[in-house]
Amino acid sequence: MADIKQQALRCRDAAQAIAQLSTEAKNALLRAMADALLADEAVILAANARDMEAATAKGITGAMLDRLKLDGKRLHGVASALREVADLPDPVGQVTRQDVRPNGIRVERVRVPLGVVAMIYEARPNVTADAAALCLKAGNGVILRGGSEALHSNTAIAASLQRALREAGLPEAALTLVTDLSRETMLALLQLTDVIDLAIPRGGEGLIRFVAEHARVPVIKHYKGVCHLFVDASADLDLALRLLLDGKASRPGVCNALETLLVHRDIAPSFLPRAAEALRARGVELRMDEAGRALVPDAAPVTDDDYAAEFLDLILAVRVVDDLDAAIAHIRRYTSDHTEVIVTRDEAHAAKFVNSLRSAVVMVNASSRFSDGGELGLGAEIGISTTRLHAYGPMGAESLTVERFVVRGEGQVRHPDLLD
Amino acid sequence: MADIKQQALRCRDAAQAIAQLSTEAKNALLRAMADALLADEAVILAANARDMEAATAKGITGAMLDRLKLDGKRLHGVASALREVADLPDPVGQVTRQDVRPNGIRVERVRVPLGVVAMIYEARPNVTADAAALCLKAGNGVILRGGSEALHSNTAIAASLQRALREAGLPEAALTLVTDLSRETMLALLQLTDVIDLAIPRGGEGLIRFVAEHARVPVIKHYKGVCHLFVDASADLDLALRLLLDGKASRPGVCNALETLLVHRDIAPSFLPRAAEALRARGVELRMDEAGRALVPDAAPVTDDDYAAEFLDLILAVRVVDDLDAAIAHIRRYTSDHTEVIVTRDEAHAAKFVNSLRSAVVMVNASSRFSDGGELGLGAEIGISTTRLHAYGPMGAESLTVERFVVRGEGQVRHPDLLD
Repeated sequence: MADIKQQALRCRDAAQAIAQLSTEAKNALLRAMADALLADEAVILAANARDMEAATAKGITGAMLDRLKLDGKRLHGVASALREVADLPDPVGQVTRQDVRPNGIRVERVRVPLGVVAMIYEARPNVTADAAALCLKAGNGVILRGGSEALHSNTAIAASLQRALREAGLPEAALTLVTDLSRETMLALLQLTDVIDLAIPRGGEGLIRFVAEHARVPVIKHYKGVCHLFVDASADLDLALRLLLDGKASRPGVCNALETLLVHRDIAPSFLPRAAEALRARGVELRMDEAGRALVPDAAPVTDDDYAAEFLDLILAVRVVDDLDAAIAHIRRYTSDHTEVIVTRDEAHAAKFVNSLRSAVVMVNASSRFSDGGELGLGAEIGISTTRLHAYGPMGAESLTVERFVVRGEGQVRHPDLLD
Repeated sequence: MADIKQQALRCRDAAQAIAQLSTEAKNALLRAMADALLADEAVILAANARDMEAATAKGITGAMLDRLKLDGKRLHGVASALREVADLPDPVGQVTRQDVRPNGIRVERVRVPLGVVAMIYEARPNVTADAAALCLKAGNGVILRGGSEALHSNTAIAASLQRALREAGLPEAALTLVTDLSRETMLALLQLTDVIDLAIPRGGEGLIRFVAEHARVPVIKHYKGVCHLFVDASADLDLALRLLLDGKASRPGVCNALETLLVHRDIAPSFLPRAAEALRARGVELRMDEAGRALVPDAAPVTDDDYAAEFLDLILAVRVVDDLDAAIAHIRRYTSDHTEVIVTRDEAHAAKFVNSLRSAVVMVNASSRFSDGGELGLGAEIGISTTRLHAYGPMGAESLTVERFVVRGEGQVRHPDLLD
């Protein structure tokens, strides 16, 4: 407990050195980290094998076990991701605005690192490298608190990355892995308001709620993605079907997958039966309201809970709505503020949909699956925020900085009369 | 308690209507609010007279009493401030970035309102109108929780502003004044994580610490402004003296006033005695380290607590430092992350000072008193943030919005192969 505070304070001190690195030095560091991971491949895979063995002994199987697994190919993928972060533009030092005031002072807004970012995450050991890379790229120190099931893997990966820091003459505390995974230590970490500038929880809703409910430090998070697709009366139905299948069936276990389909009643007869057939051919279970079941009689009835659910599975809730307003009202009631899509050929309807909804990402005639930092052009993603503060939607390196003011003058004062 | 939640929920609903207003409608509303305040001048001044009477009976005097006072001239000032906010650019709907991805989807970053902002403040009744105006301008609902000493004034002002909302056909709950000033109700307000998007405390350090320590909703704040002025060896000493007098003596009770002077040892003999004389002529008490007192023998000795203090008074802590690095080290130790100034003719020193310090505002050869939303070009200010997240430094209307993603496509999907 006292230990975690000491660790965090060392990270904060080390972060000052990272904050002042040149872009070139940071990029060289990230490339050296990629090299270090590959040089340590045998050690890292052996550590991962221990984690896999323990997980199997605990009865973990399927997707969860797969998320934990590393092999040569995946580790090369992690190293490549580090090099990609090195290739991204450096947000630190960017001048976002410049202004000369009437009195001649020049005011600039300049991006600076946040300071220390704490990542709290589960299973995937690649997050250890990915999150560290983005935090360091943005000039921050990073405290990594992964899950117990990946502790050996995370420890081995962190050791490699820290060696690269050391070899670059930098304090390895800039990347601090928390190895005491007790609840008390996590709670203590989340109270360090003078040390940690931002905590980002990533994982299941339970973990995220725990962090959000107990943290005194600022938290940016998203609980779940209940993404909606609304097919308007004027929609191109072929296009709507493409977006529907991509959104629901391409990877149902991710947060930008669709969970609810809303269909305008005027086109429901021509769209719903066809959509149902295509979805079922891809293994999707359908839960529909009365109007939907009138068109697709063998669909299961939908409940209010279904409309609020993030299924993360091949299940789709369906509702037939009277019009655009009804679609907007439905989404406002059930939204998780993540991603909503309208399919329409009506510009005014598209504009109304966009302006009426307060979700982080709103799309017109594009797949919800693009709601992702890489796809939206951020290069890499540290998480997705549905917190309406600082960042809203996918977060890249820039979201790990903040704009401050730099002012240059030639002796201007506010009250020259005082000087007489 | 249940009441405050109901009030806040009504404000959230009302905020949706504000979020969708056109710029013209919002500006007309703000001007109508200014008119309403002037039309209600007699009522507002009578309410303020009641507050003043009660404050006087409680023994409140001097600056605190003056902050509470309204008269015709001040009320006209408040109305003018509303019109100035109407004239500011509208941050909502601003497209901050546009990008076309390789697959043809067009990605825009667009500013949207935060939602509901809770202002928690003390004495000055003008904050009721100023804060409401900025929140509404940025498309937000606002919950105002002022101090008990200004309750009658705040109630009268809020009633005027709400009448303008009503007459514009808008829900008056968009501006909600909390009149139950119990500690329990404030605590309940600060727990409403699903309703309030941001809380901004403004007032004494005690109030701000109370809010920061008890809130579950996001808080942006600054505790105090311990602003430093460093006079480098290469400084133009006339210029340095101007900045010093303006920073310390023009208005010592504000957060952007100087509290500590750091002087390079090489120019201390030529600068300090002269500075001491000019400061004393303006009533400033000096507290100096040993090296300073060697040059200004009758100065009081300085303590470590003095270096950490925000005097808000005509008192200045002084230290003679060996060089730029020592100045940076001193500021890093005692900074409140508010505003720091260097006076130098050496470009490299200026750059090092700016890059080595993480304060919200860093200035070269300009007065710390410019660390203010109006002076830095934001038009108006809702507060100053030393929280390194979302906003850092003076906050204007733009800080009451967040960027989200709007994506337009022509049916692009992420996995076209799925559609075969």
